[in-house]
Parts: sequence; C-alpha cells; structure tokens
Amino acid sequence: MTSTIEPPDPEDGRLRLLDAWWRAANYLSVGQIYLLDDPLLRRPLEAADIKPRLLGHWGTTPGLNLLWAHLNRLITERDVDAIFLAGPGHGGPAAVANAWLEGTYSEVYPAVGDDEEGMQRLFRQFSFPGGIPSHVAPETPGSIHEGGELGYVLSHAYGAAMDNPDLLVAAVVGDGEFETGPLAASWHANKFVDPVHDGAVLPILHLNGYKIANPTVPARIERDELESLLRGYGHEVLTVEGDDPMTVHAQLLAALDTAHDRITAIQTAARQDGDTARRPWPMILLVTPKGWTGPHEVDGVLVEGTWRAHQVPLAGTRENPEHRAQLESWLRSYRPEELFDAEGRLVPELKDLAPRGKRRMSANPHANGGLLRRPLDLPDFRAAAVEVPTPGGSVHEATRVLGQWLVDVVRRNPETFRLFGPDETASNRLDAVYEVTDKVFAGTILDSDEHLASSGRVLEILSEHTCQGWLEGYLLTGRHGLFSCYEAFIHLVDSMLNQHAKWLKTTRELEWRPPIASLNYLLTSHVWRQDHNGFSHQDPGFIDHVVNKKAEVVRVYLPPDTNTLLSTMRHCLASVHYVNVVVAGKQPSYDWLTADEADLHCARGLGIWDWASSGGDEPDVVLACAGDVPTLETLAAVSLLRTHLPELKVRVVNVVDLMRLQDDQEHPHGLPHREFDTIFTSDKPVVFAYHGYPWLIHRLTYRRTNHSNIHVRGYKEEGTTTTPFDMVMMNDLDRYHLVMDVIDQVPSLGSRAARVRQLMVDTRRRARAWTREHGDDIPEVRDWSWLDSVEPDSQASPSSTAALDDQP
Amino acid sequence: MTSTIEPPDPEDGRLRLLDAWWRAANYLSVGQIYLLDDPLLRRPLEAADIKPRLLGHWGTTPGLNLLWAHLNRLITERDVDAIFLAGPGHGGPAAVANAWLEGTYSEVYPAVGDDEEGMQRLFRQFSFPGGIPSHVAPETPGSIHEGGELGYVLSHAYGAAMDNPDLLVAAVVGDGEFETGPLAASWHANKFVDPVHDGAVLPILHLNGYKIANPTVPARIERDELESLLRGYGHEVLTVEGDDPMTVHAQLLAALDTAHDRITAIQTAARQDGDTARRPWPMILLVTPKGWTGPHEVDGVLVEGTWRAHQVPLAGTRENPEHRAQLESWLRSYRPEELFDAEGRLVPELKDLAPRGKRRMSANPHANGGLLRRPLDLPDFRAAAVEVPTPGGSVHEATRVLGQWLVDVVRRNPETFRLFGPDETASNRLDAVYEVTDKVFAGTILDSDEHLASSGRVLEILSEHTCQGWLEGYLLTGRHGLFSCYEAFIHLVDSMLNQHAKWLKTTRELEWRPPIASLNYLLTSHVWRQDHNGFSHQDPGFIDHVVNKKAEVVRVYLPPDTNTLLSTMRHCLASVHYVNVVVAGKQPSYDWLTADEADLHCARGLGIWDWASSGGDEPDVVLACAGDVPTLETLAAVSLLRTHLPELKVRVVNVVDLMRLQDDQEHPHGLPHREFDTIFTSDKPVVFAYHGYPWLIHRLTYRRTNHSNIHVRGYKEEGTTTTPFDMVMMNDLDRYHLVMDVIDQVPSLGSRAARVRQLMVDTRRRARAWTREHGDDIPEVRDWSWLDSVEPDSQASPSSTAALDDQP
Repeated sequence: MTSTIEPPDPEDGRLRLLDAWWRAANYLSVGQIYLLDDPLLRRPLEAADIKPRLLGHWGTTPGLNLLWAHLNRLITERDVDAIFLAGPGHGGPAAVANAWLEGTYSEVYPAVGDDEEGMQRLFRQFSFPGGIPSHVAPETPGSIHEGGELGYVLSHAYGAAMDNPDLLVAAVVGDGEFETGPLAASWHANKFVDPVHDGAVLPILHLNGYKIANPTVPARIERDELESLLRGYGHEVLTVEGDDPMTVHAQLLAALDTAHDRITAIQTAARQDGDTARRPWPMILLVTPKGWTGPHEVDGVLVEGTWRAHQVPLAGTRENPEHRAQLESWLRSYRPEELFDAEGRLVPELKDLAPRGKRRMSANPHANGGLLRRPLDLPDFRAAAVEVPTPGGSVHEATRVLGQWLVDVVRRNPETFRLFGPDETASNRLDAVYEVTDKVFAGTILDSDEHLASSGRVLEILSEHTCQGWLEGYLLTGRHGLFSCYEAFIHLVDSMLNQHAKWLKTTRELEWRPPIASLNYLLTSHVWRQDHNGFSHQDPGFIDHVVNKKAEVVRVYLPPDTNTLLSTMRHCLASVHYVNVVVAGKQPSYDWLTADEADLHCARGLGIWDWASSGGDEPDVVLACAGDVPTLETLAAVSLLRTHLPELKVRVVNVVDLMRLQDDQEHPHGLPHREFDTIFTSDKPVVFAYHGYPWLIHRLTYRRTNHSNIHVRGYKEEGTTTTPFDMVMMNDLDRYHLVMDVIDQVPSLGSRAARVRQLMVDTRRRARAWTREHGDDIPEVRDWSWLDSVEPDSQASPSSTAALDDQP
Repeated sequence: MTSTIEPPDPEDGRLRLLDAWWRAANYLSVGQIYLLDDPLLRRPLEAADIKPRLLGHWGTTPGLNLLWAHLNRLITERDVDAIFLAGPGHGGPAAVANAWLEGTYSEVYPAVGDDEEGMQRLFRQFSFPGGIPSHVAPETPGSIHEGGELGYVLSHAYGAAMDNPDLLVAAVVGDGEFETGPLAASWHANKFVDPVHDGAVLPILHLNGYKIANPTVPARIERDELESLLRGYGHEVLTVEGDDPMTVHAQLLAALDTAHDRITAIQTAARQDGDTARRPWPMILLVTPKGWTGPHEVDGVLVEGTWRAHQVPLAGTRENPEHRAQLESWLRSYRPEELFDAEGRLVPELKDLAPRGKRRMSANPHANGGLLRRPLDLPDFRAAAVEVPTPGGSVHEATRVLGQWLVDVVRRNPETFRLFGPDETASNRLDAVYEVTDKVFAGTILDSDEHLASSGRVLEILSEHTCQGWLEGYLLTGRHGLFSCYEAFIHLVDSMLNQHAKWLKTTRELEWRPPIASLNYLLTSHVWRQDHNGFSHQDPGFIDHVVNKKAEVVRVYLPPDTNTLLSTMRHCLASVHYVNVVVAGKQPSYDWLTADEADLHCARGLGIWDWASSGGDEPDVVLACAGDVPTLETLAAVSLLRTHLPELKVRVVNVVDLMRLQDDQEHPHGLPHREFDTIFTSDKPVVFAYHGYPWLIHRLTYRRTNHSNIHVRGYKEEGTTTTPFDMVMMNDLDRYHLVMDVIDQVPSLGSRAARVRQLMVDTRRRARAWTREHGDDIPEVRDWSWLDSVEPDSQASPSSTAALDDQP
C-alpha cells in the first residue's frame, strides 16, 4: 500500500532546528569541495581560498544531509539504535560533515578539531593529496559502505541488520544505483528477514532524478508504476516530495515516525505474539532536486535539479570571479553566522540535536565491526576428522564431512555465524547443518518444504551478489560467515570482491578500526566436476582474480582431501581481515592424510609427501600438485612411474596454501628462496599439476631459481558435459599425460622410457575411446590397486620449518 | 494491468495437436536424458538400454517444450518471425528435441537422421562423452543463449530485437533466474525499446516454483504482490496457470494470441500513427509444476512439482528395476506410438505443425547471426586523425577524437551499429556522436533533456550487466557494437565475458555457425585518472581476466595516443569473433605518432620508437611501455636520462597489442622468440612501465630469453583521490622512479649515476611535498620543454616484420 501521512504543524519548532542542522551540514559539504581557506567567510572569497582541483560530488549530498538530520531527530526522540548506509557513497562530504557536527570526527582525528582551525583542516583535506577520499570511505567514521561501486547498499544493510534485533539500518538507495542488477535483486532481501532475531532495514529511495548525464529510469516512469514496483518488492511506500525545504522537513519528519511505528509493530507482533507472517516493511520514497540548494543556474544553464549538478556545479571558481561570487553567495545562503559561533564551533542549540555517544550514527559501534567482533568458538576439527588408515585407504566427500564439523560451529555460535549460498548449500553437500538450523525464509512455507523456517543460520537466494553483500554487511558489523558457491559463478562477485579487498586494505592502516572477521569462500562444485553442467560451469579463474589484490589481505587454499579441508577451514574461520578462498571438491575422493598429518601439512602450507616419494634428497624429478583432482592424478602418475620406471627417483610436493609459492618479499606467506629451493630443487624438472589456469603458477614462481624447469598442467579452457576423467584428459592433466611430461623432462631415461611413453599415449587413446563408447570412465581409473605402490614407506617429516602466521 | 483472457473452446482441434507435439518433445527429452538404446520402446527397457551416467535437467524441460509447441502455433497461424531464448538453458533436451522435430537437427547434423536410428543417436549423444552438452549450447540449432549462468535472457532478448522491427523474441525467464541481479535489472530494458525500429520481446516468466533445493521467491510471495512487481516493471501480465494439460493448452493459446495482438497494437500505433508513447508491453506468467508429466512420486517421496524434479528424477534406472519400470511407464505415458511411425519418424500430422524453413525457431537465421552479419562500412580513421607535427607536439583527448570518428561510423551504418554504456558515453567523451544520433529512451522525456529520443543508436542504463547483455544479443544476431565503460567497473561483467568467450570458442569449431562481429570494449576513465573518485574506481585487472580466456578469441590493446586509438578501434570494429579490449585515456594527453606512423605501429603491435631511442642496435637498457600514462612517464624518464646521463644508450619500445608479448605458440599474435629477442634484446635490462598489474607482463613473457632481466612497474593497488602524478608516484611508475630503476639495473654507470639517483629520490620527495602543500602536481610535470630531448632524430623504421593478422 501507499500511505498518506499527516505532517506536523508547520510551526513545529523541530522543523526549524532540523533545517538549521541541514544547513550546517550543507555548508560544511560545500566548504569541503571548494575551500582551502577562509572557512567562515570572514572576508570575500579570493582565488587563493579555492582549491586548485575541485574534486567531489555535490548532487547527492544535500539529500544525504537531509536524511542524516532527520534520522538524528528520530534517534534522539525515540532512543533508536541506528546506522546510516549511503548508497550514493559519492556524497562523501555529507558523511564527513555530519560526523564533524556530531563531534565524532574530532574524536577520531584529533588534528581536525571542532573549531575554525579544525573546520579549515576538514575542508582542506577533502579530496586533497595526503587527505581523505571523496567518497564515504573507510576513513569516514560511521561508514561500513563506500558506495563507489553502486548496487550493494541494501544487501549490506540487510547483512548488518541480521542478528541485531534492536538495530535500525537506514539505507539510502540512489536512483542511479536503482538501475543496477545487484541492487534490483537485493530488494528481495526483505524475504529473508527474521522479525524476531534480526533488526530492521529502512530503505530510502532518493529520487533526485538524474545520474551523471541522464535522467534515471525510476524518475521517468509513471509514479504509480514505480510505486507498484516498490509494493511488488514487498514494501509500504511512504512518499516525501518537494523542493520547498520546510514542506519537505515536515513530510519527512512524519514519514520517519510512521516508518518507525510500522517497524515496531511488525517486530512487536513477531516478538510478543509470535506472529511472524510477512508484512510489507515500510520504505521512504524521497523526491527532491539533485543538487538541491546549490546554484540554480550557472552561466545561464539550469543546474539545480538536473544531471549537471552531479559533480562540481561551479567549475571555474578559482579563475572566474563570477563563479567565485556565486559560490560565496551559495555558501552564505546557509547563514553560517547562525550555525557556528565566533570560534567556528557549532552553536549549542544545534550541538544538542546530535544523539549522545554511541547513539551517534558516526560513532555507532555497529559501523566499526572490529569493536564488536568476538572470536568464534570453534570446535577442534579433529572431532569431525576422518580415519585414514593409509593414504588413499578411505574415500570421503570432503565438503560433506566439513558440513558435519560446521554443525558444531553453528551450535556453538548461535548468534554470530551464518552460512550464505546461492541455492547451493545442499548441492555443495553442507546440508548436515540442517540438523541444527534452518534456512531462514519469510515467504510462504509449505508442508512439503524442508528446512525452511522464519529463523535460521543459512541464507539462500539465487543471487551471488546478494549473498556476498549480506556476508560483507554481516562481517563489517562484527560477525562471522562462510559463503559456499559453485567455483565458476563466484566470478559474478569479482567486482564486489575488489571493493571489499580495498576496504580491508585501507582499514589495515586505520588504528581506530580493529580488524573484522575474514571473508571466507568455499568454492566447490569445481571446474573438474561439473559433470551435469559442462563448459558453462567450468572456470577456475577466481583465484587469479583474488591474487591481484593486495597480498596482505588475500589467501588461497587448495586442500587435497577431507582432513586438510577441515584444518584449512578451521584456520580460515579463526582468522581476521583476510579474504580466504578455499577450493575443495564435493565428490567422493581419496583421503591422503590423517588429522594430525593434515594439520601439520596445512600449517606448513606446502610440503614433500615423503610417503609418496622416493630417492630422498636427490630426486630426478619433482611432481608437484595443488588441488584435489590434480593430487589424485599426480599420485596415480607416481604409481605408474613406480611400476614402469622404478629406477626414477620421484619427489611429490603438495601445495595447500598457494601463496607459499611466492617469495616472502611478495607475500607474507611466501616461502623464502632457500626453502623453496630445498623443496622444489634448484635444477630438477618440476611437473606441476594445478587445479586452475596453469600460468598462475608461473606468475607466482617466476622469481624462483628453478623457474625455467617448472612445467605446469592445468585447466586450459577445454571442457564439456563429460566424465571426470575425460575432463582431465581434455586438459592434459591426466596421470598418463603427467607421466609423459616426466619422461619428456628427464631425457636421461633412455629407450625404455620411450616405450613407456608410447604406452601412455596408447593408454590415453584407449581411455578416450572407451569413454566415448561406454559413456563412462575406463574402470582402471577407479581401480585402487595402484595405491599399493604409493603406500607410506616413511612417516611424513618436516620438510619446511616455516609455519604459517598463527594469527589469531 | 492484469488481463482476463477468453480461452478457446476445449473442443478446438488445435489443442489436441498442440498436446501431441508437446508429448513428442517430452518423449524425446526424457529419451535424451536416459536412453542408450531401444528409443521406441520396442522391448521392455533393460539395464543396458540406460545410460551409465544420467546427466541432465528434467525439471524445466516440459515447460520449455510447452512454450515451443505453442509458439509454433502462433508462428504458423500468423506468419510470425520469432526466435526462442531459454533462460533456463539447463533444459537443453527441450531445444534439441524441438529442433529434431522441426527437421533442423538432421539438416545441421546429417548423422542424426529423422528416423529411429537418428533418434537413437540423438538420445545417446546427449550429455555423453564426445556428444553434446546438457544445456541449450552453441551446438544447439536455434540458440543464441546457453543459459548455464543465469540472468541474461532478457538483456540478450532485447539486444536481439533491436533494429529487427519484424522480429518477436520469446524469452523464457526461469523463476530461479528471476532472483538474480542481472535479470532483475534487465526488466527495465523495455524502457529502451524503439517501437518503430525495434522488434518486440515477449517475456515469459515460468513459475514452476523451485530452484535446485529451494522454492523460488516469486513463487512464495502473494500473487498480487508478484503481479504488482511485474506491472511495476512495465508489463501487462497475462497469466496461464494449471496442472491439467488441456486447460493449460487452452489458456496458453489464448494468451499468446492476446500478447501478439497487444504487441501489434503498440507497433502499429508507433509505426502508422507516430504514437510512440510508452505502453505496458505484454508478458506471460506461466505457472505449471516443475517436472510436469514426470514421475509424481519416487520411492514414496513427492517429486513432480517440487525441487526434487530439478535434475534426474529417477536416479537408479540402471540398477533398480522398479525405477526402470517407472521410467518406462513415464515414457509410454506420452503414447509414442501415436507420435512416431514404424520407422521412428514424426507422423505427418505433427510434422505439418512445424513452421516452414526459416520460420522454424530452430532454423531462424537471427539465431545464427553470422549468417546475417555484413561488415561495417568503416570510414578511414585518417579522416579523424590529428596532426602531430612532432612527437609530443600536440595534445588531444583520445576518446573525444574517437567520438568524432564514430560520428561517421554511426552515419554510415544506421541500422547495424550501436554504442552501449552505463551512463558514461559523455563522461567517456564520446558525445560527438550526438551530432548524428540520440540516446534511445522510452521513458518520459522533458524539454530540458539533451539527446534523448524514442529512436537512437546510443543505449545508456546504469547497469553494466544490461549493457553487456544487450550488446551480446545484438552481436549474436549479426550486428556490431561498442561498449564503453569505466575500466574498474567492467569487472562487473567478468562472468558474462566468460560465458561469451566460451560461446565464441565453441562456435569457432562449428562450421554451420559463421563468425559474428567481435565484442569490443573501450575501457576509459582508467585507473590512472580517477581523480574525482579515487580508490574504489581504480582497478586495471579486467585485462588479466580476459587473457585467461582461449587465446584464439581474446585481444588486448593499449594505444598510447589519439591516432593509435583510432587505428586500433578501426581494426577492432572490422574484426570478427574476438573479444577486443581497448584501454585508452580520455584526458588531454600528448600525441606521439602521426596517422601513418600510428597505423604502422598498430599493425606491428609493438615496436622500437627510434625517435625516442639512442644507441641503435646496442642499447644499454630497454625502456618498454604499454598504456598512455606509462608511455608518457617512460618518455619523460628518457628525457631525464638524456639530460643527466647522456652517455647511456636507451631503447624505447612501445607495446600496443599486449598479446605480442606472448610467444607464437601461446597466442596467434605472439611474437616469435627471435623477433622478441631482437627488440627486447637477449641480455640487457628491460624496465617495463605497464598500465595494469605488473605481474601480467611476467606471466606473458616468462618464456622469453631475457625474462629474468625484465623489471615491471605498474599498478600495485595503491590509490586514492589525488592528482594524476601523485597516483603514478604512489605506484612507483613515475618518471623519476623509472630513472632510478634504470640506474639500479645498469650497475656499470658508476658514481655519477649514483648522484643522479639521489637527485631523483630528492625530486620525488619534493614532488610529493609540493603536491601535498598545493593540492596539485608540481608544475614541471606539465612542463613540455623536456620533450625537446625526445624529438625525432630518425624516422621510425620497421623493427618487426610480422604484421598482425589482417582479418578481415
């Protein structure tokens, strides 16, 4: 429904105060964009008072300031615990201005005081070299959402609200952002709100009508069409519209009260009466001009209320005296003399409007999640570990066993840990968690549904963007989570990952922001086992994307079996401020390491598997592997080599932590050159079977002594709907080809090797033909007998002394 | 509005025929998923008749078959030119079955005949090693949309309909796909339809209620809420709902007639009466059970109408006789004896239902765009080229000049070329095109708007996903286009690029699909010039993503100046079946090459810039560069070296075509080792200034003789809102640091060099401090006088003899 609201009496004194705060914030915003000096306009503006480069976005800013002012009124009158997410994060000056008005800015950055000198520094530093960015950046107190890349404000907001029953998350959606896919999908996040245990999101669609150079779609369809759409998204629409400030103040005040009443009613019904039936959540449709209160016309061209107000409406203020005069009268239109005292401090009457302490949106600890984060209570992974009598002596589905361990993680952390997935939690075989929790869903639930409930720890929507945004919002407010996804489709969030990695990188350098929990990906249903779906579902390139990010914040793990997956995931869930990418299979697969061996191997990150190796310190060749399928093929190749070329001394190296391959100058996990050379030798051929695109291994190892001897097999973009072994053959990653590679790289092997090589060629041909005839893999690839020849002949011994950082 | 439709008389003979076709398609679909042999059930099914691995998706298939049957009825009755896009592309068996029923399959693949033997081959090959994929793949006649990665069916459909006024694009949206962001955004594509010059899209939302393991959101909100949403998207909703086949046939027949009437009315009003006011376009909401007509229960558990019908409802048909018997009765329920004659051919009565020739959706040339593609009429780029009296003797904004050239491209190709961009065409300075065309927009247009009209060649929506989908749909149906985008945010379509590159790779091997036009990206507003927006807008990693794709289909260009950009873009627009990524700046920048020099340089892909080099064949050091900003810094470094270390012999190499760096075994554009060594030397230090992440250069060159001497500077994820020169300093890509790198790499330079190095260190410090004080770059980086020392001292001469492939 669309509601009509009774606005307050125009004489209501609150409106005047709201307007004064708004003017103060607008003044400070314009000052940040333009002024180097003379912050209180004590003299006519001169060229030297103006910044030489005008970098910022005015257009969205007055709307953000308006909302901040009014939310403060709501917070103080009703003692609301609220945070503010600015979808149009380009309006950085607004968040900074309000943080300064609330006193938070000077508390966090004492150099920027609350007086005239502080105001000058505030102005100068904005978009200035060595200063602060132009957006609502990590540097901005009160922010968990930068908004530079558009589309994520609602999913961040809903993530923040989860398990924070008393929190109100005000989420401003720009009407440009409204057009993006991720934002469009995330409206449906309201079907995943648990009204008992979650807080509320108040979406505010700010229709200022324009993007950079165009009108926005929602502003140019009929209003009833837009409202139909928003109601269809599950909202009650409270419209506030106008270009007369006092009228808008009156409407907005009433709308926020109404919205808060509605939220309270829904929550009360659910919490006191157990009535969790989904009802339309309120939202506000705010329709005000772009660049409102800014220059109406510049050089005879309309600016206010058009796309021309997007960035800096007066571009020539340094050189052009007319523009400068216009800027000055614009600034003076806010009547700064009424707002700031002689020393440049906010006048007491306005200061009193700010909420107190942590109720200030700029100082709310939910917007600085590291303050609230408590480590997860993690069970020992050994409780779920599988028995491994001998390497290859048992078979498990790694992710299914992980699911068993996660049962206990969920049980021990009932309010701070969630699982996110695009309809794939069961497909990815983590469904054991349904023993102790459900998938939360506020839509209609039928008797025939399984594990759906109004409360739960698992979130599933067929939108990787929404899953990622939820998890980010949940982490940024101090909690923990795991995103499981088909490997190929995690590329959908490449760009979101970029933004989150940038946030982590920047906040590492901000002492006042303690670290947050790591963003953990479990990528399964991976490239080698997309039997049903084929080529479209085969892409291992997310790893490549992630390793481009700042080394300090990214980690990539390829556990080769069940116990290593458990150990890895325990490590990841305990870690902070990283992006952890874990790639693991869900299909039945051999176990190689016992729990203790797995833990040691994971702590080292990579190591020689002595039990699979021969020849001790002087191998003829190194067979390296990373990933579950490459490990299987490598060990099978070792078995073939032992059978056919028993004199060949083979060293098997398995890599769990991919970043160990880089040197310690490049990555904190990097192996020093000496240790690398000890393991990979400095002159022997290395045949490396890798899970993903082979050139990544070269990119990580090109500085290594032995790099020119490293030969990598991996996914080379060949695939279809076929059998698992056909897939490895299509990409030359199969055991037979690895044997051929070894023979090609060890020329001293002589004529017997040539015959073995031909045998491999023939076997591959036969395997291919068999598969095409029978529609299945040749039985011998499932024959376990070859494992006899890789049975342990010695205990694994420490091959690398460096342990991973034992954070935390 | 939601419309009530009068269904036809239940005795209408058309319904029986529609049902028969549907049963035939369903029979063939189940056969594909299960059967190796006995395609006509001439004997009771035996284990050996069943495939050993059951790979496919039944759930969505009966819905797709139903729609195909009914669309054929519409096509034949009304002579409609239509194509079919299956959003739930997992239902591959449906598209294959209908193509076989229409005869197209046997025409395209003669080995799969139209009789019993052909049917057996059809069944066997599906999801079988050496056979065909399980999805609506490129191998499927009539498809331009694979649907493996969900979310793009509507944007593809709208792209296909552009400039095809007589085409009807039926686009089936799965209700799982409905939840994705890209799909959610793309509903608004109907605001960009030109009813005069474009065809129509008929969206069909198929609400079968379930995804892999969950109900879908749209199926579990109130129906009036869903309809409100769909009306809000701008549609008239025609609902067809039921689980009784004949009732649904009657409703769907009427709904399609109504939808077609509505479309005709809108188009007629626009075309005959000039009435282009936007009206609600019809869409169909089809509500039928998932896995309809399949096993209702399996092992006592409900399957039909639930998520359990998603893939293969009967999993044990080979081992379990009960399942096998259930499969047989399922197949027999379609009464194949009525559908196929004794030889396995479709009975004539049903055969007659198929449209004729190109009217068959499986044979419509719009679904095989290479058949329709005509080369663009491209003007000589020299017509727009800029005068370059000497290298660095003029300054231009490269993309603005490109815009001038595009004016003529648009003018000459008024129906086959479009520009796509997320609200950035003007920001990216291509706005000259508005001299000859407009931005198409069907929303309300105000007098104050500029260049918006109901017809136009430019499409702008703030959704990179929609832009990409539109362009793909436009290309796949035989036309041409250019997508201009901020460099950082093109990552939003990483995953879409994956899918398109896979399509290109696969169709290269399908002779019956001639090549389509290349997908051309112009990435500008790049990492080095995000002065306003800072860190969130800085990411050059799309190149890294693209080069992971199959070498045969990807090309990356980094033109260093205006004329090279023109030459490059002309090459790209003339090319076919590639993904071309062109990265170029929009800010004022020096010109280096005349039009002729630029063309030669681009044809070579890389080359020595003799005019900037000294020392001829025996340089002491090579300074290589790729990208406009790195080229500027490199030439400035050369100038500094000439001033301070005039005895040093410097070779300058500029790289336009990044793939030249790989060897010719790795990429078709790769430079043979001998030529690479001639240019980069086999033993001299190479200081490489690169636009993006530096390790990409190592990844491309690790096989080169001189690789260990290549030292790369590039973007290392350091950035903020600051000045352009501060950005290059933050990443050690600046001229001073390049000079330091040269000195560090040429130890023979001695003590004078040490003093120069210290001067560089001091100058950097001074530059940093100056910038932080004044908020602008130190004036000397804008001082052109240094250019004097890189003025040409010889004409550019051919340094590499290999020319690029001159396709087309």
